[in-house]
Amino acid sequence: MKRIFEIDPWKVVTHKLSKEDKRLQESITAIGNDYMGIRGNFEEGYSGDSLQGTYLAGVWFPDKTRVGWWKNGYPEYFGKSINAPSFIGIGITINGERLDLNQVDFSDFVLSLDMHQGLLTRSFIYHGQDCDVKFEFRRFLHIAQKQAALINVKATVIKGHAKIEFDSTLDGNVVNEDSNYEEHFWLPINEDKTQRTIQVKTKENPYGVPQFTVLLKESLRHDGRVIAGEVTSQTASLSEKVAIELDENQSYELEKDIVVITSRDVAADKQEQAASELMDQLQAKSFEENLSYHTKIWQERWQQSDIEIVGDPAAQQGIRFNILQLFMTYYGEDKRLNVGPKGFTGEKYGGATYWDTEAFIVPMYLAITKPEVTKALLQYRHDQLKGAYHNAAQQGLAGALFPMVTFNGIECHNEWEITFEEIHRNADIPFAIYQYTNYTGDESYVKDEGMDVLVGTARFWADRVHYSKWRKKYVIHGVTGPNEYENNVNNNWFTNTMARWLLKYTLDRLPKATKAAQERVNVSDEEKEHWQDIVDNIYLGEDEDLGIFLQQDDFLDKDIRPVSTIPEDQRPLNQHWSWDKILRSPFIKQADVLQGIYFLNDQYTKEQKEKNFDFYEPLTVHESSLSPSIHSVLAAELGKKQKAVELYERTARLDLDNYNNDTSDGLHITSMSGSWLAIVQGFAGMRYSNNQLSFKPFIPDNWDQYSFKINYRDRLIEVYVNHEETKITLLEGQDLEISVNKQKVMLKEGEAECLKD
Amino acid sequence: MKRIFEIDPWKVVTHKLSKEDKRLQESITAIGNDYMGIRGNFEEGYSGDSLQGTYLAGVWFPDKTRVGWWKNGYPEYFGKSINAPSFIGIGITINGERLDLNQVDFSDFVLSLDMHQGLLTRSFIYHGQDCDVKFEFRRFLHIAQKQAALINVKATVIKGHAKIEFDSTLDGNVVNEDSNYEEHFWLPINEDKTQRTIQVKTKENPYGVPQFTVLLKESLRHDGRVIAGEVTSQTASLSEKVAIELDENQSYELEKDIVVITSRDVAADKQEQAASELMDQLQAKSFEENLSYHTKIWQERWQQSDIEIVGDPAAQQGIRFNILQLFMTYYGEDKRLNVGPKGFTGEKYGGATYWDTEAFIVPMYLAITKPEVTKALLQYRHDQLKGAYHNAAQQGLAGALFPMVTFNGIECHNEWEITFEEIHRNADIPFAIYQYTNYTGDESYVKDEGMDVLVGTARFWADRVHYSKWRKKYVIHGVTGPNEYENNVNNNWFTNTMARWLLKYTLDRLPKATKAAQERVNVSDEEKEHWQDIVDNIYLGEDEDLGIFLQQDDFLDKDIRPVSTIPEDQRPLNQHWSWDKILRSPFIKQADVLQGIYFLNDQYTKEQKEKNFDFYEPLTVHESSLSPSIHSVLAAELGKKQKAVELYERTARLDLDNYNNDTSDGLHITSMSGSWLAIVQGFAGMRYSNNQLSFKPFIPDNWDQYSFKINYRDRLIEVYVNHEETKITLLEGQDLEISVNKQKVMLKEGEAECLKD
Repeated sequence: MKRIFEIDPWKVVTHKLSKEDKRLQESITAIGNDYMGIRGNFEEGYSGDSLQGTYLAGVWFPDKTRVGWWKNGYPEYFGKSINAPSFIGIGITINGERLDLNQVDFSDFVLSLDMHQGLLTRSFIYHGQDCDVKFEFRRFLHIAQKQAALINVKATVIKGHAKIEFDSTLDGNVVNEDSNYEEHFWLPINEDKTQRTIQVKTKENPYGVPQFTVLLKESLRHDGRVIAGEVTSQTASLSEKVAIELDENQSYELEKDIVVITSRDVAADKQEQAASELMDQLQAKSFEENLSYHTKIWQERWQQSDIEIVGDPAAQQGIRFNILQLFMTYYGEDKRLNVGPKGFTGEKYGGATYWDTEAFIVPMYLAITKPEVTKALLQYRHDQLKGAYHNAAQQGLAGALFPMVTFNGIECHNEWEITFEEIHRNADIPFAIYQYTNYTGDESYVKDEGMDVLVGTARFWADRVHYSKWRKKYVIHGVTGPNEYENNVNNNWFTNTMARWLLKYTLDRLPKATKAAQERVNVSDEEKEHWQDIVDNIYLGEDEDLGIFLQQDDFLDKDIRPVSTIPEDQRPLNQHWSWDKILRSPFIKQADVLQGIYFLNDQYTKEQKEKNFDFYEPLTVHESSLSPSIHSVLAAELGKKQKAVELYERTARLDLDNYNNDTSDGLHITSMSGSWLAIVQGFAGMRYSNNQLSFKPFIPDNWDQYSFKINYRDRLIEVYVNHEETKITLLEGQDLEISVNKQKVMLKEGEAECLKD
Repeated sequence: MKRIFEIDPWKVVTHKLSKEDKRLQESITAIGNDYMGIRGNFEEGYSGDSLQGTYLAGVWFPDKTRVGWWKNGYPEYFGKSINAPSFIGIGITINGERLDLNQVDFSDFVLSLDMHQGLLTRSFIYHGQDCDVKFEFRRFLHIAQKQAALINVKATVIKGHAKIEFDSTLDGNVVNEDSNYEEHFWLPINEDKTQRTIQVKTKENPYGVPQFTVLLKESLRHDGRVIAGEVTSQTASLSEKVAIELDENQSYELEKDIVVITSRDVAADKQEQAASELMDQLQAKSFEENLSYHTKIWQERWQQSDIEIVGDPAAQQGIRFNILQLFMTYYGEDKRLNVGPKGFTGEKYGGATYWDTEAFIVPMYLAITKPEVTKALLQYRHDQLKGAYHNAAQQGLAGALFPMVTFNGIECHNEWEITFEEIHRNADIPFAIYQYTNYTGDESYVKDEGMDVLVGTARFWADRVHYSKWRKKYVIHGVTGPNEYENNVNNNWFTNTMARWLLKYTLDRLPKATKAAQERVNVSDEEKEHWQDIVDNIYLGEDEDLGIFLQQDDFLDKDIRPVSTIPEDQRPLNQHWSWDKILRSPFIKQADVLQGIYFLNDQYTKEQKEKNFDFYEPLTVHESSLSPSIHSVLAAELGKKQKAVELYERTARLDLDNYNNDTSDGLHITSMSGSWLAIVQGFAGMRYSNNQLSFKPFIPDNWDQYSFKINYRDRLIEVYVNHEETKITLLEGQDLEISVNKQKVMLKEGEAECLKD
């Protein structure tokens, strides 16, 4: 745990340059606009330890899979969102000295991410041999005009006289830190000194993945007018130099406008013209006008989605930071995209799509964005069904297997214990169809396209189980559950349970599907009988004495002992223990049995929930960022308020407090929804099943009040909770009967229902 | 299965150049002298598909481990015997045309490995536009003067007139096919045109592994006299050209003598002088004289170790080929070396040491070489104990863990399911101490140095087991047994059994150890009690109804069905099935439970052996080259003669018939001992326990007779078996009482004991 930014309700701010934690600082000050994103690198460059990162949504490269020993069925490539050309560069020289905060003398450093505006600012006073100069940077990625980035730097001479040279650059000579043998992924195409553009293209690949072409254009302004510096170019890079001289108290403001066009939207030969037009549009407004337009949209988003917490500024900052970063990564505006575990903030996990989206993002986005956003996420998987059929065939199995890691539906992860075995994803991903249908009441998707997904995955499961003559049950061998600290186990309860759920839900929905869908999927009676037989006879491990579900065969054979018995200096385990020791230990990375109880919440009794929680949570090290939130929700449901709050704190400030000591690699974007889930499903106890929305709220002791809004079936509902009462207001929409603390409450538009505790 | 060489008792010969199977042909015609080895590449070069390979024993490079996802405890490097500078090159041009059998017209091709002499010969007639020339090549690696290689090429003009240019080369610009990103491992140091030497050095590495320097020297002779060609050099290579002209019926013989010195024996700055001296010694004899000296030593080896089979030339050829290749790889003359799975015949498995040596090589070498050879193999592991302690510490465990793959004792394999889990090796390797002691009767090793190995590994096992409160037994979780088609299983019967054996044997031997050894290992009473408790209470899975030992927990939960149910076109599984499908199937790669029954043969009843064999063998696909031989020995013991013979045939001609369709990568050196085991332990039923040597021979129906010799406690014994009788002769040594078919027989020197069937 390490906190390098100060507590503030609407800002992530620090007054110290943390040289030893520069990468951490860069991760936390990353910004994005769900089209592109950049880490908090410095415009003027930085010679100390740093991870440079610029990422363009949907622009990726299939890097050759390298493994020690090849296994049949491995994917040929590992896809990664590659580091894109860097466009923020504004090198600065003052009276001949290169500005580099790792080298020069400076004071009054402030670095701040304004969450209300999605704006990154930075200022400091440079102390040179013969002058002091204050620098103020502002930058944002335009949330409406997504191809645009705007940077404003202001220099003010505090003392002496300064000759300042700005060197604005576009640089395509970038590499990924994680590339094999420092390989470059970009080929230069063109540098145009007149147009101030560079154009690059991803390398060829033998896998049929399209090459991406990207054009970047820059333009400098001063006092609202375009200025022309001295332009030079080298392969895949461009530099534009502007020199000024300032006396004491004089200042100069330089604006760098950037446009980034990719071949995902505009063909390579049309990119230059498109960039010119966009630049003209952008520059029709001043920096300040663009910023206020951008800010207005952010305000609208916050209006719908903010969670206000009074009495605990750290918790307040945490939840806002998470909502901001999620929205900077994905807002459903491009249906070809999804949410990578690190968003645009680092290289790890390659920027690809994981099951995190369906399990952790969907329930939050259902409630705080329009249904179309979630439907776009469902559509994304439907569009990739062809890849899912390919993945199943790679393993010699029938039906469709959604990938663990993908850009296009084809699996590109290369560990057998994950690729081949972490197949619970193939029920979790379709589970989003149930969630969508259940929450929105909109049956159109599950009746038609959703059926393709359900039947494709059902066929996979029906082939993947086998009948054990010895046990007289269907079993599932050789899987990895959500708890990835176990590999290649048999009868993982969660996997078996979700496979059963998938088959049952598919059988339930099939008769209600459209005729077209039924014809398309063409399920025979024999198939249906077989699926029903699996539903009726799948093995689900249980220990009656303990009253628990068994995470897997042999689990009780382990040396069962609580996490509290591990010496503190051996945590997190994944940084201290060998893989062998981790695998053999009873310790659990993230919710596994409890993930099933969370998903299928209405199927289990309170006693079942309690016994499983009390058995498994003490064994859980929460070393996945996806873990604490699920446990927090269940703890809240079980009245374990202190535990719920403790786990909430861990998920809400996971990155701000660098809880897992790995935020320097990038933010844990997909788990950021966890803090929202912990508040809304946990503290406020929101559930929805059988067309009934319900709440069972409580408030953490140290909070004064909290409130949030949700969209529910064309209504906007506000929930406000303090220590005396819960107030639920139907802000917009038709009357609705809901349940609060198991009592029916009728909501009427514009009226607040107060429920005293 | 593919047979490209003809059947012959003492030759591996073909009259056809198999262009489509060139790599296979190269593997089978590889030669070595347990100091170095070369694949059957052509001296004049070959433009078609080919795997060039030259290997120097003990010369290796630690290549950086590349994995998709790093696990704690992984080794930093993967060691490999790298492709050494090639010294066989003699480019040939005839009237301006480059001789390349992939391009030119030729006839009368003969390629032959003379097993009696360890000599490779090749001849053919080249048909040019205006001439026909016969070429005859001979080459061998000198078995007495190990740094020397000799090549003789004779050109005879059959028709027309030929201007022939020979271009003899030394070439250090070689790469491994399996190197990451085509990396070169050699750095040039020097080329000396006068001395006709090149000197190269392995690249630096960050792992503290020494760099190896190698010097190669060549000298050309004609008619016994050194001749001087035109020498040129380039970086890391040298070329010496000799041009001649021949009229019809004229011939010319060119001899290329090569000396190869490595820094394992001679420091870099002394190599040139050493090479000159060795070359002088070599050239004091003619090619024919050197060859007859070399042949004489091979004859002596054969005299001791040949197995003669009358009536089945294919079987005869197979066993001789295996003995030849084993002896060309290792004969115990350099105690720093061991036996790599591919010997000097390919890159796969990196030329490192595996548990194959102890499990498969030791029992054969014990019987056919002097005890010192096997003792050298034991000493090799003792010398690497430091690495073994390091390996255990890497996993956070006590004691010593011998590596799966190594050059220096430090593990360098990078799959968690092998590196961390295939730990049965840590009992199999010490089992060789028992085998040595039991066979030779020499207790000196186990009493002293052997105790360091036993106690080190015992301490590992005592820490690696854990007590299951649920099962009330010691258990071993997370292992991979010899059957590598299962990973991360619990309570693998073989592993548990061998761990128990190791602890028991250590406890048995400890009181008899030397005082010095006892003080060195310093085992406390508490430790001994704990070990005894594990011996008494370790879980060994059994199914009483079936009367079998359980390969692992949950094994019976599988879809058990015999190998005969797999369609023929899906075999071998490892080339047709995904890893997922293989892992979940009941099919067994190589002996697992049965390996334990083989090792601890005298501990099980015939009924136990029979039930386990009848249950497991039908599930076994024998896709490890180590598999058929063990099954053949057990089948023979159980009177399943047909099965024993069928499995023998698979092991004896595994490479000659390319049974597993992978001999193109190199020969299966360590499993070659299997055919010897199948004859001696299987057909002849040789066993030794409690100081008693015994036989229970039978003869395959289609053989007329077979005979072999063994060394046993300073005696040389010949065993001869035909369909009427078994004849056992004590050729040398003191009288000995043995058991044949459970009857006591007293052997007297020089007398043959005949036992009628």
